[in-house]
Amino acid sequence: MVSKNQIKLITSLIQKKYRKQHQLFIAEGAKVIEELLQSNFQLEHIYQTKPMFEAVSDAKKALVSESDLKKITALTTPNDCLAVFKIPQEKHIDATGLILALDDIRDPGNLGTIIRLCDWFGITQIICSEQTVDIYNPKVIQATMGSISRVAIRYVNLEKYLSETTMTIFGTFMEGENVYKKQFPNKGILVLGNEANGISKEIENLVSKKITIPRFGNLQLTESLNVATATAILLSEFKRST
Amino acid sequence: MVSKNQIKLITSLIQKKYRKQHQLFIAEGAKVIEELLQSNFQLEHIYQTKPMFEAVSDAKKALVSESDLKKITALTTPNDCLAVFKIPQEKHIDATGLILALDDIRDPGNLGTIIRLCDWFGITQIICSEQTVDIYNPKVIQATMGSISRVAIRYVNLEKYLSETTMTIFGTFMEGENVYKKQFPNKGILVLGNEANGISKEIENLVSKKITIPRFGNLQLTESLNVATATAILLSEFKRST
Repeated sequence: MVSKNQIKLITSLIQKKYRKQHQLFIAEGAKVIEELLQSNFQLEHIYQTKPMFEAVSDAKKALVSESDLKKITALTTPNDCLAVFKIPQEKHIDATGLILALDDIRDPGNLGTIIRLCDWFGITQIICSEQTVDIYNPKVIQATMGSISRVAIRYVNLEKYLSETTMTIFGTFMEGENVYKKQFPNKGILVLGNEANGISKEIENLVSKKITIPRFGNLQLTESLNVATATAILLSEFKRST
Repeated sequence: MVSKNQIKLITSLIQKKYRKQHQLFIAEGAKVIEELLQSNFQLEHIYQTKPMFEAVSDAKKALVSESDLKKITALTTPNDCLAVFKIPQEKHIDATGLILALDDIRDPGNLGTIIRLCDWFGITQIICSEQTVDIYNPKVIQATMGSISRVAIRYVNLEKYLSETTMTIFGTFMEGENVYKKQFPNKGILVLGNEANGISKEIENLVSKKITIPRFGNLQLTESLNVATATAILLSEFKRST
């Protein structure tokens, strides 16, 4: 059974303001939940339609019906389990290695894909502008497939942060240097811009190295790359040369 | 006004069997429609909420209300125009350049992103297994942002096709050769596998060069790359070395 109050609380967590108020977020599906459990995210409660997660104490698990799960899921088609976790404290970001800086990424699927790419390429630190979509948005959590547990993410005033760093700041612009002809350092900040508008003017002024992914198709007609596929190519280029 | 029969026809085009029966597909939004018009796709009719597309004869345009557009759109939030186009004849695929081969890509968003990547990297030919999602699926058409007009795509019995080609066939596998250490030819076929299962056993037997994108994160834990981001990295590697 899931009580009315629990349903109200859990479904409220789809909205950022209630996640902030309660300091809780939801994750769905055994794979994602398992990875968060193993990474010391603090579990509040699991709702499951069959016995799972043997290592979790019974006091933290409830067996529920499929129709109950439908009442609390954030997915169109619910999985067989949903967990509520505490939002952990934001970690400190060190000026080491390659750091990704997200300038107003708005699409949860894009943010999820970017976090998964960071995990693949061993990038462990991301800073986000305050307008970037919340990492605890259920769609972001689902898209990361658990890799969120291995990347430290912090929301900051990005303009202030970048104006105070001593690290080299890279950003992609049409007129930048060809990424295929460049050697990249193993330390720096790579800025990725908003889906519709790219990198904002204020942040562009702080970029020290402008780079570009050259296009091979019809120059006039080809659409731009989307931010997640551009990130894939850029991280690949940074990592292949280090 | 949109008649009941028109609504019935247009909404039926969300399903592949009716697209096949009528040999028609829909595209939404000025940008996508404009690119298809410019690329000699044969227009059947445009439904628009305000005057647009001056070059199109009035006989092929209907001014409709927003509520009418809502009745025919395949999108959650309709744009201001929807066009019905004829499905063109499939083009012949030549054994030249780099050809992409899709082994059961099922997600329309992934296929759309892959077509956009091909357009960016100047890849003009794609062959798809018969189980791959239909390129005239409205979600694919939207995701390509018009780049579908610049890439020839053909559905074939992929196993038969690959068993008869003389071109080198590349495919990604865990135990493949590191893509960062390889020089790629400017001619060949690159196979991409299904989202859940990767490249099928039958197709794997036909792959002549196994390659791999090395991972830099925690080897045990990191999620695999999704097929669209893997395609981005692979096309970038093929093109950077030619």
